[in-house]
Amino acid sequence: MVFEIKSRIATFGGELLKLSHASSATKTPMAVSIYLPPASKTTRVPVLLYLSGLTCTPDNCSEKGFLHATASKRGIAIVYPDTSPRGANIAGEDDAYDFGSGAGFYVDAVQEPWSNHYKMETYIVSELLTSLFEELSSSSSSPEINIAEKLDKSRISITGHSMGGHGALTLYLKNPGLFKSVSAFAPISNPSRCPWGEKAFAGYLGSDDKEEWKKHDATELVKAGGWKGKDLKALIDVGTGDDFYKQGQLLPENFEAAVKEAGVSDVTVRYQENYDHSYYFISTFAQDHVEHAAKYLF
Amino acid sequence: MVFEIKSRIATFGGELLKLSHASSATKTPMAVSIYLPPASKTTRVPVLLYLSGLTCTPDNCSEKGFLHATASKRGIAIVYPDTSPRGANIAGEDDAYDFGSGAGFYVDAVQEPWSNHYKMETYIVSELLTSLFEELSSSSSSPEINIAEKLDKSRISITGHSMGGHGALTLYLKNPGLFKSVSAFAPISNPSRCPWGEKAFAGYLGSDDKEEWKKHDATELVKAGGWKGKDLKALIDVGTGDDFYKQGQLLPENFEAAVKEAGVSDVTVRYQENYDHSYYFISTFAQDHVEHAAKYLF
Repeated sequence: MVFEIKSRIATFGGELLKLSHASSATKTPMAVSIYLPPASKTTRVPVLLYLSGLTCTPDNCSEKGFLHATASKRGIAIVYPDTSPRGANIAGEDDAYDFGSGAGFYVDAVQEPWSNHYKMETYIVSELLTSLFEELSSSSSSPEINIAEKLDKSRISITGHSMGGHGALTLYLKNPGLFKSVSAFAPISNPSRCPWGEKAFAGYLGSDDKEEWKKHDATELVKAGGWKGKDLKALIDVGTGDDFYKQGQLLPENFEAAVKEAGVSDVTVRYQENYDHSYYFISTFAQDHVEHAAKYLF
Repeated sequence: MVFEIKSRIATFGGELLKLSHASSATKTPMAVSIYLPPASKTTRVPVLLYLSGLTCTPDNCSEKGFLHATASKRGIAIVYPDTSPRGANIAGEDDAYDFGSGAGFYVDAVQEPWSNHYKMETYIVSELLTSLFEELSSSSSSPEINIAEKLDKSRISITGHSMGGHGALTLYLKNPGLFKSVSAFAPISNPSRCPWGEKAFAGYLGSDDKEEWKKHDATELVKAGGWKGKDLKALIDVGTGDDFYKQGQLLPENFEAAVKEAGVSDVTVRYQENYDHSYYFISTFAQDHVEHAAKYLF
């Protein structure tokens, strides 16, 4: 598989590459962007994978998240996958903001017809990371650039926002050793018990086997006990003015209680007074999250 | 006149206020946003006025420009006016991206029907700044906040992007002493001689008296000689990958030549390799422009 370079944009001393590639996991083209810091011109740099929230494309956070300012200084590449397949031509896929297009929830769907394309867990963990580190990227319209040789595949951390915070926490917890650290902005921390998660899990995973849901729920994954006595290397920020937090969509307290109960260490959850769910919140704390990753990547 | 607070958003330790007020200059409601840094809780802070480019509302730069990161640290308020009246109900006002709505060019129109509403120079210089510094702001939905008592009206600087860079340079040059310094991102530096400026000036000012155009053209204002031997305290950044620069819409070289010819000092024009016209460019150099203002505001 070869990445097609849609555009190259100079920013913060490095460049943002907007890419597209044919995914075998989703059987669709997938958009992904990558910020390459100036250090990548002379050395292999570690990678911070940023998973976006409901409705987002790779553009939202790369335009508004402000991660590049610190990633530029620290020499970290940021990878922004899309939040779902696009154009899978499934009836109703564009009908809701919280299911289907823009709402893949970072799980592999088992329910028809979603299971034909909505394989976001496999896409992210098995396909995208492998491709970025191994494939020669080329474009007919731009000079060739070999992304793989700019990245250090032994050093990857993960972060995300809202649905992407859920994705970051669950993919981290399910794949010990793959990522050096995890962080999240306003994550959906216990999706089995909130309206967004219940709708998505019922639709993608089915409602018959709730045990299956637990494999994609950060709070339940911690309760399962595999991380007992271990350092989670996790930083979580939640705004107290976040309407979705107030509505019980995020439930970070459940995650905190599970962490305490399970005897997991090195988890910092901060409640930021008055901050909302928007990029005004993300951009404010972006520096802290990139620095958190840097602590473990270097 | 009283500002209505549409929303208050916590960001970078301070808050962004989205306001609306009835303008006597434009005879329409006008949107304006203001970022209040944390220092404004305890002291009067200086102000950096940011004028946006074609098509923009106060939201574009407040979401994507990243001026707040440095404004927060330095204790500077940022004011984001809109780029034109909205809803003036002039036939054709929404037909083009570069004339009418979103394209007021910071001049007072004299041509009918625009002259009934498109008085952006008067709005910015005479009405907005006066109102911000003197009016008690209130909202039925939020706790009252007195913006005026948080701002130091004796310390104002001005900056802007593209059409807003034109606005920043011309309003600065035309009002000696009003602003402490000026900067611009990719400014339309010689509008009398580029397609954007020619269209806007012909429409708002008429084509009969080209001398009138010179009063709203940064290059011509410098040529006029009033700044001879004086420090302009100006910082300008232009990306060499900017398509509008390549198309001759910006003409910063004309401004530089005029500065040299007129014997004006303290003007820094930087050509940033490969950078484009977007917020990826603005956000990269936002820190430098806020620091430039800070140098003269403190």
